[in-house]
Amino acid sequence: MTNPVFAALGRPFRLGIVGGAPPSMIGPVHRIAASMDQCFTLAAGVLSSRPERSRAAGVAVGLVESRCYGTVEDLIAGERARDDGIEAVAIITPNDSHARYLKLAISAGLDVMIEKPLCNDLGDAKTLRELAASTGCAVAVTHTYSGYPMVREMRARCLAGEIGAVRLVQVEYLAGGLATAVELGPDGHQRWRLQPERSGPSLVLGDIGTHAHHLVSFVTGQPFETVSADVGALHPGRKVHDVAQVRFRLAGGIRGQLDVCNAAAGMSNHIGLRVYGETGHMEWLHRRHNELAIASLNGEVRVIAAGQPMLTADAQHSSRLLHPGHPEGLHEAVANLYCGLADMMLARRGHATSGAPRLVPTIDDGVAGLAFVMACLESSARDGAAVFLGS
Amino acid sequence: MTNPVFAALGRPFRLGIVGGAPPSMIGPVHRIAASMDQCFTLAAGVLSSRPERSRAAGVAVGLVESRCYGTVEDLIAGERARDDGIEAVAIITPNDSHARYLKLAISAGLDVMIEKPLCNDLGDAKTLRELAASTGCAVAVTHTYSGYPMVREMRARCLAGEIGAVRLVQVEYLAGGLATAVELGPDGHQRWRLQPERSGPSLVLGDIGTHAHHLVSFVTGQPFETVSADVGALHPGRKVHDVAQVRFRLAGGIRGQLDVCNAAAGMSNHIGLRVYGETGHMEWLHRRHNELAIASLNGEVRVIAAGQPMLTADAQHSSRLLHPGHPEGLHEAVANLYCGLADMMLARRGHATSGAPRLVPTIDDGVAGLAFVMACLESSARDGAAVFLGS
Amino acid sequence: MTNPVFAALGRPFRLGIVGGAPPSMIGPVHRIAASMDQCFTLAAGVLSSRPERSRAAGVAVGLVESRCYGTVEDLIAGERARDDGIEAVAIITPNDSHARYLKLAISAGLDVMIEKPLCNDLGDAKTLRELAASTGCAVAVTHTYSGYPMVREMRARCLAGEIGAVRLVQVEYLAGGLATAVELGPDGHQRWRLQPERSGPSLVLGDIGTHAHHLVSFVTGQPFETVSADVGALHPGRKVHDVAQVRFRLAGGIRGQLDVCNAAAGMSNHIGLRVYGETGHMEWLHRRHNELAIASLNGEVRVIAAGQPMLTADAQHSSRLLHPGHPEGLHEAVANLYCGLADMMLARRGHATSGAPRLVPTIDDGVAGLAFVMACLESSARDGAAVFLGS
Amino acid sequence: MTNPVFAALGRPFRLGIVGGAPPSMIGPVHRIAASMDQCFTLAAGVLSSRPERSRAAGVAVGLVESRCYGTVEDLIAGERARDDGIEAVAIITPNDSHARYLKLAISAGLDVMIEKPLCNDLGDAKTLRELAASTGCAVAVTHTYSGYPMVREMRARCLAGEIGAVRLVQVEYLAGGLATAVELGPDGHQRWRLQPERSGPSLVLGDIGTHAHHLVSFVTGQPFETVSADVGALHPGRKVHDVAQVRFRLAGGIRGQLDVCNAAAGMSNHIGLRVYGETGHMEWLHRRHNELAIASLNGEVRVIAAGQPMLTADAQHSSRLLHPGHPEGLHEAVANLYCGLADMMLARRGHATSGAPRLVPTIDDGVAGLAFVMACLESSARDGAAVFLGS
Repeated sequence: MTNPVFAALGRPFRLGIVGGAPPSMIGPVHRIAASMDQCFTLAAGVLSSRPERSRAAGVAVGLVESRCYGTVEDLIAGERARDDGIEAVAIITPNDSHARYLKLAISAGLDVMIEKPLCNDLGDAKTLRELAASTGCAVAVTHTYSGYPMVREMRARCLAGEIGAVRLVQVEYLAGGLATAVELGPDGHQRWRLQPERSGPSLVLGDIGTHAHHLVSFVTGQPFETVSADVGALHPGRKVHDVAQVRFRLAGGIRGQLDVCNAAAGMSNHIGLRVYGETGHMEWLHRRHNELAIASLNGEVRVIAAGQPMLTADAQHSSRLLHPGHPEGLHEAVANLYCGLADMMLARRGHATSGAPRLVPTIDDGVAGLAFVMACLESSARDGAAVFLGS
Repeated sequence: MTNPVFAALGRPFRLGIVGGAPPSMIGPVHRIAASMDQCFTLAAGVLSSRPERSRAAGVAVGLVESRCYGTVEDLIAGERARDDGIEAVAIITPNDSHARYLKLAISAGLDVMIEKPLCNDLGDAKTLRELAASTGCAVAVTHTYSGYPMVREMRARCLAGEIGAVRLVQVEYLAGGLATAVELGPDGHQRWRLQPERSGPSLVLGDIGTHAHHLVSFVTGQPFETVSADVGALHPGRKVHDVAQVRFRLAGGIRGQLDVCNAAAGMSNHIGLRVYGETGHMEWLHRRHNELAIASLNGEVRVIAAGQPMLTADAQHSSRLLHPGHPEGLHEAVANLYCGLADMMLARRGHATSGAPRLVPTIDDGVAGLAFVMACLESSARDGAAVFLGS
Repeated sequence: MTNPVFAALGRPFRLGIVGGAPPSMIGPVHRIAASMDQCFTLAAGVLSSRPERSRAAGVAVGLVESRCYGTVEDLIAGERARDDGIEAVAIITPNDSHARYLKLAISAGLDVMIEKPLCNDLGDAKTLRELAASTGCAVAVTHTYSGYPMVREMRARCLAGEIGAVRLVQVEYLAGGLATAVELGPDGHQRWRLQPERSGPSLVLGDIGTHAHHLVSFVTGQPFETVSADVGALHPGRKVHDVAQVRFRLAGGIRGQLDVCNAAAGMSNHIGLRVYGETGHMEWLHRRHNELAIASLNGEVRVIAAGQPMLTADAQHSSRLLHPGHPEGLHEAVANLYCGLADMMLARRGHATSGAPRLVPTIDDGVAGLAFVMACLESSARDGAAVFLGS
Repeated sequence: MTNPVFAALGRPFRLGIVGGAPPSMIGPVHRIAASMDQCFTLAAGVLSSRPERSRAAGVAVGLVESRCYGTVEDLIAGERARDDGIEAVAIITPNDSHARYLKLAISAGLDVMIEKPLCNDLGDAKTLRELAASTGCAVAVTHTYSGYPMVREMRARCLAGEIGAVRLVQVEYLAGGLATAVELGPDGHQRWRLQPERSGPSLVLGDIGTHAHHLVSFVTGQPFETVSADVGALHPGRKVHDVAQVRFRLAGGIRGQLDVCNAAAGMSNHIGLRVYGETGHMEWLHRRHNELAIASLNGEVRVIAAGQPMLTADAQHSSRLLHPGHPEGLHEAVANLYCGLADMMLARRGHATSGAPRLVPTIDDGVAGLAFVMACLESSARDGAAVFLGS
C-alpha cells in the first residue's frame, strides 16, 4: 500500500475531528484509522460540545491547544484563517447534530467523513446531497463493514457473476447492548441513543439497520425496491426501537430478509451476510471477518481469506498485511474508508489517486439509508404493507 | 437405554411399512431407526404402489414374501388375519396419499408413524385428528429434528427459564435440492414433489416449513399466533413454491422470523435455530447437531455437547452413546421418535413406559403444521397481511 | 447400499457376541452396528463372564435364553451343535482375554470382529495371525475411526496423489476420562483398564494409541519405520500410562508426530489428523467427522462433506444417507467395519461381495498396532532413542 | 487506553527505525504499531542498507530527508547531535545484523525494540544481555503473539490457577511459505532467510520456533528444562531447516510438545496453543485470535472474547476496542508490545507508567529463545537425546 497523498502533496491531508472525546468508542477508532496509512494527520478538533472538555481531550490526543476549539463554527473559522488549516473534517457526533455540522462543513468547502446515519431527516439528507454536489465536496459515510477486505471480495465476486444471477439475500446485524434496561443505568455517554429526539426516527434502523442496508446494496450492486417491515421494541416499555424485521425486494426482483436487533441478549456485534445465486452462495460473518465462504451447487465450501494471492484487486488494495494468516481488524476497515476519502479528495484537486477502485460509501449511500429507514417505518405503521422506496 | 417394549412384551412391536422402496431416501432411515433400539421389528410392508416392486423391495430388506403386500388395504386385511400381525404402521409415501392411508390405518386400530406433512388439506387433518382421538390410536409425526438430543436439551433449558422470558426466535431451513431446474431432469423418484397436486398446497412449506414451524413451538413451548408471509419461487418459471419468508408472533407476543428455501444453491440441509431471552440466547445448528451454544448477557458462549454429564434427562434419554465425543446422527434422531411412539403404544396398552418424557410430535403437531401452511399462503396472497392462526 | 449377504444367502450372517453386558459402552455399539445393514443378526452370546448376568443381559437384548451362554467354550460348542449356529463372533471383552477368545474362535473356524488392541502380547499376536492364515478365518479389528466416510475419503485422495507426495503427518487422540483419579472412584466397569495386568503393557497406547497408529497408516498407506517416544502418566501416582508423545518416520522418510492422552482434562474423545503433501494438506477432525478440509498451496481451504456427489467411491460405499447434510455417526462407522467383515466372509465362502473396496482393518493391522506399542515402550525406556519397528 | 507518554512528556517518544524498506512485510507493521497509540512517533531511520534506497523509502513513509540515514552508525551520530534526537530504535533487519545493531544502540544508551530472534549466537546474546543490564537500556523483543489480548488472558487465567496445576502443553506454529522451492524463485527480499549464514543456526527455529517457545513460557510462567528434538528439512535438498519436532519438559515436570514448520503446504501462519491442567484446559488459535476457549472437566467449553467485560486487567489493558465483537488484529498486538516498551522507558526515566502489567518480552526472553534453539540443535544432532537447557 503506497500513499498517494504523500506522492501528490509531500504530506498527509490535515483533518479536523468533531466529536469523540472519551469515553466515546468511535473517537479512537477514527483517530487511529485516519492516521494509520498517513493519508491524514489529525490537526484540529472539537472533541466535545463542552469547550473545556474539548480542549483537554484534544490535548490528550496530541492536538496543540490552540487548535482545540469549542464549537464547529470556531473550528471552521479558526482553521480557515491558517495557511495550514484543515482540509477535511470527521463528524462523529450524536445523530441529531449531523445535518447541522455537515452543512457547516460543506458550506466551508471542507471534505467530510461522517458517521452513519447521515442525519435524522430524509428531506435534510437530500438537501445536503444537493449542497455537496454543488460545492464539489467529497462526503464519505462511515459504513465500516464495507471496508473489510473480504466484504469487498464478496462484492467483486458477486458482481463478476461467480455465483450467477443473484436470487436471495439474507443479512442480519444482532447486538446485545440494549438487552437490558440500560435506560435506567449509569452508562451516561450512550444515553443520547435512548432519546428518540436525538437518535432519530428509529434507533435500531439508524444505528445498525443502515449498515445492513448498505451491505446488501454494496455487495449485490442493487438498490432496494420494496420493504415490508415490523419495527418495535423487544424490551418491555422501551421508547426507542430495538428490533426490526424487514422483508425486501431489490431491483431485478431479488428477494431478501434483513433482521436487526440491538437487544439480542448475548450477541456481540454479530453481522452475517449471505448472497445466493444460480450456482452457489457466499457467506461473510463479522466474527470471521477475514474469511469468505463460497459454496458450490454440490455443497462444497471454499474458504478464502484476506492476504491470499488469489484475491481480487479490491481486496488486495484493502489490505496492509498481504501475508495470509496475519489478521487485520476494524481499525483497518475504517482506515480503508479514509483511504477512499483521500482518493476522492485527490481527484477533486486534480491529483493522481491510489488507483484503487472507488469503494467508499458516499452521501448517495447515506441518502439511500435514510430512505430505507423511512420506508420501513411507513410499512411497519401500515401493519407490514409493502412500501416502495423512491429514488 | 433399556428397552421398555421387551420388558413389557418380551418382544418388539411388529411394524408394517408403507412406502420406502429404493431409491427412496427415507425408506432406509425409517427401517434402521425403527429397529435400532429393538422397540420395533419390521414385519410386513407395502414398499411400493406397484405390487411387483413392492414384493421385490420387501424381500430385499428382509421381509418374508407372504407379508409383502400390493396395497395398504391388503396389508391391513392380511395382517389382521394373523396372530402375529402388525401393531403399528409407518406411512412414508408421497404427501397426497397420507390422508387416505392414515385413515385406513387408524380405522383398523393401528398405531402410526407418519411422515410430515400430516396431509395436504387442513380439513382432512382435523377430521383425522378426531378419528384418532375416538379410536385411541397413537399417531406420531416424523418431525425428525426434534429427535436430536441437543434440540431436546435446548427445549428443556428454554422451558426451565435458563435464558429468562423468550423475546425473539430465528429459524431457518435452507436446502439446495431445487436450486436447479430439476423439473427438467431425470431424477424420477422425486418428481412427485414438483407436481402441486401431489406435494400439496406449498412444496416448500409442507416439506421443510412444517419442520421449522414445529421446531419453534417445540423448543419455546408456544403456539404461533400470527404470520406475515411471502411465499413463492426463486427459480424462474417454477410451478411449486421453493421459498418462504415468514415473520411471526408466538403466544405471549414473542417475535420471530422463519425462512425456508429448498432452492438455496450450495446449502446442504442447513437448519439453524436461535432463541433469545432476557438473559441470553441459545443456538442450535443442524450441521453441529451434537452441540448447543448458550450465550450469556456478557457475550460468553458455553458450548455443551451430547453425552456430557450435565445434560438434562431429556437429552440423556435421547442418547445411546453417553460418552462425550462419540457422535450419533440422523438415524438416532428418528429412532428417538420411534421410542416415543413405542411409549405411547405401551401406555395405550396399559404397560409401563420407558419413563422418558413424552417428546414425540403427535397428530396435534401435524394439524398445527397444516394450519401454519394455510395461514402463510393466505398472508402471501394478501400481500403479507398479518393472518391469525385458528386453534 | 444394497445387502450382499441377503443376495448371496437370503438371510444375514448369524453373529455371536462375547462381552458387552450393561453398563458396557461398546456393547450396544456393536449390537446396533452389526445389525444396522442386516448383514448380521445377533443370534447368540456370552455377554458377561458371570453366567447369570450373561443370561439376563442376553435376553434383555433379544437373544433366546437357550443361546445365552456362560463361557466362550460353551458358546462355541452349543452353536456348533446347531444347524443354525453362529458363523461369526464379536469379541469385545477386556484386553487380557482377547488372545484366548480369539484363539478359541479361530480354532472353531469362526470369523471374528475383535476390539483393539488385538491382544496384550506381540508374540501372541503373531501366533494368532498365523493361525488365522492357516484356517482362512476372516478377522477384523474394530479400528472404529477408519470406518468414517470422510476418513476413507481422505485416504482415497491421499493415495490418489491429491496433495502430492506426503511429507508430514500429525495425529492426536486426546480424551479426558482419566483426568481425575478414577482409580479411587466407584466407576467399576472401567476398573479393569486401570489394572496393568488386564489392560496390557500400556493403557494409553493400547487403548487409543493403536487407533491413532492405524489412522496414520490407513490414510497414508505407509507403515511406521521408527519411533521416538516418551510414555508415562500425567496424573500423579498413576500406575498405568495415560500419555504418550511419539515422533515417528513412516516408510519413505515421511515425518510425523503422534500425541495420545486419556488424561487431557476437558477433552471429549478428540481426534485430529493432518497430512501434508507437496501441494497442500488435508485435515480431519472427529468432532467434525462428516467433513474433510483440503487446503491448497495458496491457503484456500475446501470443505467437503459426507453425502456430497463429488466424493470417491470409498466414501459413497460407506454412507447410507447419500444426501448432503444428513449426518451419520459412530454407529454407522462401526457398521461399515461389519460390512467389510461380511464381504470377507462372503469371499471366503465363494460368494459375490458388495463390490466395495476392502477397507476394514484386519489382523495384520492388529499385529502392526502391537508392534508399534512395544517399540514406543522400548524407546521410552531408552530415553527416547529411535527404535526400528520390525515387520 | 490513555497515553502515559503524553501525560509524562507532553509528546510521544521519538523512535528511529532500522530496516523495513519495501517490500518488507514487517516494516509497515512496526511503523503502524509504534505510532498507533501515540506512544512513539517515527522520527528517523535507516530503512535500507543501501543509502539511496534508505532515503527514498524514509521520505515515502514521512521522514524528513535529513533524518534518513545510510548506516546505523550515522543514525546514532546524527540523532545524538540533535536536541530532538531519537530516544529509542526499532531493529527489524535480517537476523545476522541483529547483534551488531543492538550493540550499537545499547552502547549509545538507546532503548530498543528488536525483532526475534535476538541474534544468531547464544554467546552474543548473553553478552548483549549484560551490556543492556549495565547501561539500563530497555530492550523489548517482538514476540508478536504474546501481544494479543486473549493470549494475555490465557496467561492470566493459567497463572491464577483456573485450570489447576498445569500438566501438559501443546504448541504448534505451521506456515506454508517454504512449501515450494522458493530458493529457486524470484522472491528476492526473503532470499536472506534461505542463506544459513544470514538466517542463523536454524531458520525454522529462529524464525518461528522462538515464537512458539516464548508463548509456552509466557502463558505457563515456566522455563524449559529439557528438549528432545528432530530438526530438518521437509523440502528435499533444502539447505536450511524448515521443520522441527520438539518434545519438552518445563520446570515442575510439565510435559509438552512443540511442532514448527514453515513448509507446511496450505497453512497460513497457523498457531495453536493448548494448556491442560488438573481441572480443564485452555486453547488459543491464531486464526481465532480474539477468542479463548476454556474447557471444563465435564467437556463443556466456554468461549470468551476480546472486549468482553469479564476479562482480566491484562486483556483489558491490551485492547482499544472495549466493545465485544469489534475485532483488533496483528497491528494492535505489536502496538501492545510498543506500549510495554514505552512503560519500560518511562520507568527508566522516573516517570509514571500506564499502570498496565509488564508483559512485554525482554532481552531475557530473547536469550532464553536462543538457548532453546541451541539445545534443540544439539538434541537433534544426538538423535533426539534429551538435552538440558542452561540458565
